[in-house]
Amino acid sequence: MTSPDQIANAFVQHYYGVFDSNRANLASLYRPESMMTFEGDKKQGTTAIMEKINSLPFGKVQHKIDTFDVQPSAGNGVLMFVTGQLITEGEVHPQRFSQVFNLQPIPGTNGFFVLNDLFRLIYG
Amino acid sequence: MTSPDQIANAFVQHYYGVFDSNRANLASLYRPESMMTFEGDKKQGTTAIMEKINSLPFGKVQHKIDTFDVQPSAGNGVLMFVTGQLITEGEVHPQRFSQVFNLQPIPGTNGFFVLNDLFRLIYG
Repeated sequence: MTSPDQIANAFVQHYYGVFDSNRANLASLYRPESMMTFEGDKKQGTTAIMEKINSLPFGKVQHKIDTFDVQPSAGNGVLMFVTGQLITEGEVHPQRFSQVFNLQPIPGTNGFFVLNDLFRLIYG
Repeated sequence: MTSPDQIANAFVQHYYGVFDSNRANLASLYRPESMMTFEGDKKQGTTAIMEKINSLPFGKVQHKIDTFDVQPSAGNGVLMFVTGQLITEGEVHPQRFSQVFNLQPIPGTNGFFVLNDLFRLIYG
């Protein structure tokens, strides 16, 4: 049995690795019931979420994780809370961010999908 | 039927209002299954969570909310993501924070409790 911490660690490595190399490939992590709130803009479903992710104005980007907390949650879910820094191409100063993911099991499989995704830049 | 946004708004007003006036009274929001991760320190259950909250080094404190996002979540839950500023007595500069709450229904009632609570200061 894989622990919530193991699931969360594998997910976060995968998510930011894909985001920072070819973010169009994040689509497989979402499902029709998935929700993303990015800087207050709410999207639901893989298509709408990926349109938003693909439309973000920055080109090459790098996420650096500063803190990472995990708790098991309702429905055998895994709740994650990340704080870190976003380094975008051509920008000297990293931008602080916080992000929340809630993974839920995909019925009939050993896999998980992102039910909840909430992202905010932190202006200091 | 109360919407997740209405539940979340009422909760956040209540939570920070009580925290900033008499934080010992937050106990009624937690249950034995509740989890809190405060600056990476994990606690479970009302007693352990309230010991942590009551032991925090700051005296009088004021939370100012900058952003507040809400999504419905698994188990008829309400997931909240707050970013804001913490103003502590005697400190000139506010400290940035991010906090996540996941409320779950209390079985057999119309009420909710905090299943997940994750808090981080943001150092900039």
